[in-house]
Amino acid sequence: MKILVINCGSSSLKYQLIDMKDESVLCKGAVERIGLKIAGGEENVIIKINDQKYTYDKELPTHTDAFNEVKYILCEGEHKVVDSFDEIDAIGHRIVQGGDRYTQSVIVTPKVCDEVEELAPLAPLHTHANIAGYKACLNVVGPEVPQVFVFDTAFHSTMPPKAYMYALPYEYYEKYSVRRYGFHGTSHKFVSHRAADRIGKNIKDLKIITCHLGNGSSIAAVDHGKVVDTSMGFTPLDGFMMGTRSGGVDPSAVTFIMKNENLSPDEMDAILNKQSGVQAISGISSDDRDICKAQEKGDERAILAHEMQAYEIAKFIGSYVAAMNGVDAIVFTGGIGENGVWLRSKVCSYLGYLGVHINEAVNSKTQKGAEAELTEPTDNVRVFILATDEELMIARDTEELVKSL
Amino acid sequence: MKILVINCGSSSLKYQLIDMKDESVLCKGAVERIGLKIAGGEENVIIKINDQKYTYDKELPTHTDAFNEVKYILCEGEHKVVDSFDEIDAIGHRIVQGGDRYTQSVIVTPKVCDEVEELAPLAPLHTHANIAGYKACLNVVGPEVPQVFVFDTAFHSTMPPKAYMYALPYEYYEKYSVRRYGFHGTSHKFVSHRAADRIGKNIKDLKIITCHLGNGSSIAAVDHGKVVDTSMGFTPLDGFMMGTRSGGVDPSAVTFIMKNENLSPDEMDAILNKQSGVQAISGISSDDRDICKAQEKGDERAILAHEMQAYEIAKFIGSYVAAMNGVDAIVFTGGIGENGVWLRSKVCSYLGYLGVHINEAVNSKTQKGAEAELTEPTDNVRVFILATDEELMIARDTEELVKSL
Repeated sequence: MKILVINCGSSSLKYQLIDMKDESVLCKGAVERIGLKIAGGEENVIIKINDQKYTYDKELPTHTDAFNEVKYILCEGEHKVVDSFDEIDAIGHRIVQGGDRYTQSVIVTPKVCDEVEELAPLAPLHTHANIAGYKACLNVVGPEVPQVFVFDTAFHSTMPPKAYMYALPYEYYEKYSVRRYGFHGTSHKFVSHRAADRIGKNIKDLKIITCHLGNGSSIAAVDHGKVVDTSMGFTPLDGFMMGTRSGGVDPSAVTFIMKNENLSPDEMDAILNKQSGVQAISGISSDDRDICKAQEKGDERAILAHEMQAYEIAKFIGSYVAAMNGVDAIVFTGGIGENGVWLRSKVCSYLGYLGVHINEAVNSKTQKGAEAELTEPTDNVRVFILATDEELMIARDTEELVKSL
Repeated sequence: MKILVINCGSSSLKYQLIDMKDESVLCKGAVERIGLKIAGGEENVIIKINDQKYTYDKELPTHTDAFNEVKYILCEGEHKVVDSFDEIDAIGHRIVQGGDRYTQSVIVTPKVCDEVEELAPLAPLHTHANIAGYKACLNVVGPEVPQVFVFDTAFHSTMPPKAYMYALPYEYYEKYSVRRYGFHGTSHKFVSHRAADRIGKNIKDLKIITCHLGNGSSIAAVDHGKVVDTSMGFTPLDGFMMGTRSGGVDPSAVTFIMKNENLSPDEMDAILNKQSGVQAISGISSDDRDICKAQEKGDERAILAHEMQAYEIAKFIGSYVAAMNGVDAIVFTGGIGENGVWLRSKVCSYLGYLGVHINEAVNSKTQKGAEAELTEPTDNVRVFILATDEELMIARDTEELVKSL
C-alpha cells in the first residue's frame, strides 16, 4: 500500500509519499507561498527523492492548485515516482485539533469534516488550513481516494481530568471547551513506542517521558502506554519556553502587560506566540543553531536563554516523574532534541537523583536523524535520543484504517 | 525586648505583641472594616490574650484611628498588657513587595518608605495598605519608635535568573520589572530553618522543599539555605490552584477568554484571582473545610478540586527535586498544610519514587499548630508538618535590626 501524507499550513502544503511495504519514502517535499505572488528566484516548490533535491518556482493561488502540482510531481513530472494516482491508496492528513470529540484517527466523511471545522475556534489558523488541505485533495482526486485525519491531540486524549482541567471558572470549560489538549501527539506516540522497542519491553509495562524539542516544544508523560499529562495545553503556547513562544507565565503578568501597553487580546497573543521565548531572552534568534554559536562566544543573554530552557525542561521532567511516581525512560526527539548536544547534557545534569549519568561521548556525537542510548541497558532510568517521524506515524494510522474498508 | 508586629491590609490591621525574652505572644488581634460603616452586631475589633477572646465594634475611619485603637488596647484598655507604649521597643511590618531593591529586612527611614512606595505598581493594593500601616504607626507613636519592614519577597531574592526570568519580551523586564518575585518568604524561611533544626543539621547542608498551603499557597525550593525557585511569581497568582486563584494556566487561555467574554485586563485579573481555583472547580467554596465535607459525601467536583490540588502540588515538588537535583526534606505548613490530612497523604502518594512512605496514623492525627514528622529519622527524604509563624519571624528580624541601633 502507498500512502500520501499531507500537512497543510495556511500558505504551505508538505507532502510525503510512503510505500508501506518497507515504510520507505518514495518522494517528499513542500509547496510554499500558496496564494502569494512569486517574485524571481523564490523557489517555492520542493521535491526530494532519496538524497536528490529539485526546486522551482510557480505561482499557486489556492491549496487546490498546490495539490494539483503535487499530483503532477508524483505522477507525471520528470521526477515522477508512480505512473498514476491510482497507485496511491489513501491520503493521511495531520490535523492539529481534534477536541474532545476525536480521540483517535478517523476516515474522513462529510460529517467528520464538518465536525472538525466546528472545532476551529480552538485553533482557527491551523484548522482552516488543515481543512483546506483535505478539500484540495477531494477536489483533485475525488471521493474515491480514502482520506484519513490524524489528530495532534489524539494521543493525549487519555489524560485524566486532574491533568487536563485548568482551575478557571467551570463555565469556560463548559461553554468554550477551555482545557488542556496537548499537541505533537503523533510524535510522542511514535517515540514512546520506539523507546519501548529499544528497551525490549511492552509499552504497557513502562513509564516514559518524551521530550519533543523543536521550534515548538512539548513534553509528555506516557504511563503504561497512555499519556497522563503533557506540557502544551489549551493551545501550543502552554508549557515551557520555545523558539518564539513564552510557555507558561504568571497569568497576571499577561493582564499587567496588556493594561500597561494598552494591548488587545489578539495583540498580546501574538506577542506571547511570536515575540517571546528564546528569541526574546537571547535578543538574537529563535533558531537554536544561532543560540549555540552565540553561547560559544560567551553572549550572556544567549547563555541565559539556554540555561532557562534546560532548567524548565528538567523541571517538567521532574514533575512528570512525580505524576507517574517514577520513570523508566526519558526520550529526546525533534530538531533540538536530536541535535542539541549542550541542551541534552544540561537537562540530564539535573537528573542525577534519578541515577541518570549520561555518556557524554555518545551524546556529543549524536546528531539529527540518528538514534542513540545515552545510558546503559542496566541503568534504572534510560535516556534515548530517537528520531521522530510524524509522517510515518500518520501513514501507519492511515493504512490501519484503510485496510479495514 | 517587646516587638509589635503589624500586618496591614486595605481595610484591616492585624497586630501581635511578642515578648522576645521567651518569644511569647502577650496579645494579638485585629481591627477590621477600617474606613467602613459599622452596622449593629459586626464586632470588628478583636483581642486575644492567651486563650481568651474579646470583641467589640467601633467605627474607625482611617488606619491611624485603627492603630490608635491598638495602642489603647495594649496600653490603656481593660485588657492592657503593658503600662505604656514606652515598653514596646519596635514595630515590625509585613510588607508584600520589596522588588529587586529590598532583599532583606530594613529599618524604615523616609527614603526607604518612598522607595517601597515606588514599587506600588507591582502590587498596588498591598503596598498602599502596607505603607498606610507604617504611616499610621508614625502618626500615633512618632519617629522615636523604630519601625522595620520585613518583605514577603526577601527570602526569595537569592533565586538565579534562570528561575526568576519569564520568557517574555526582555523590555517588559527592563521597563516594568516583570519577573518572578515569590511571596510567603517569611513563612518559607521560618519553616525551612525549623526543619533543619528538627533534622539536627545546618540548613547549609540540606535541600528542603517547603509547601505553604492556605487560601493562598506557594512552594519553595530551599537549596543549602537559599531559595532557588518558588511557585508564586510576578504576583501571588502564579503557581498552582489556590482557594480562589487559578495558579498558572495557558496564557493563550487568558487572551482567549478575554476576547470571547469581552473582558478588560482588570476584569480578567479579578476573575483569575477571585473567581477561580478550588472555588471554581468545586462550585462549592474556597474553604478547604467545606471541600473536605463535600468530598466525604462523594461530591464529584469537590473530589476533582482536591485531586487537582494534590496533583499540582506533587508536580511542583517533583519539579523542585529536579531543580535541586535531590531533596532531603519536604515540609507542609500553613492552614491547609497543617490541617489537610487527606491532601498531605495524597501528595505523598505520588512520591514513592523518592522513598517517601508516610506514617498515616501520625498524619491523620496532626492538626493545626502541631508539629510532626511523617517519616522516620533514618529515611532518605523526611516529611514534616510544621506550624509556621510569620509574626515571630518578623519579630525576630525586627529585634535583630533594632539591637544594632
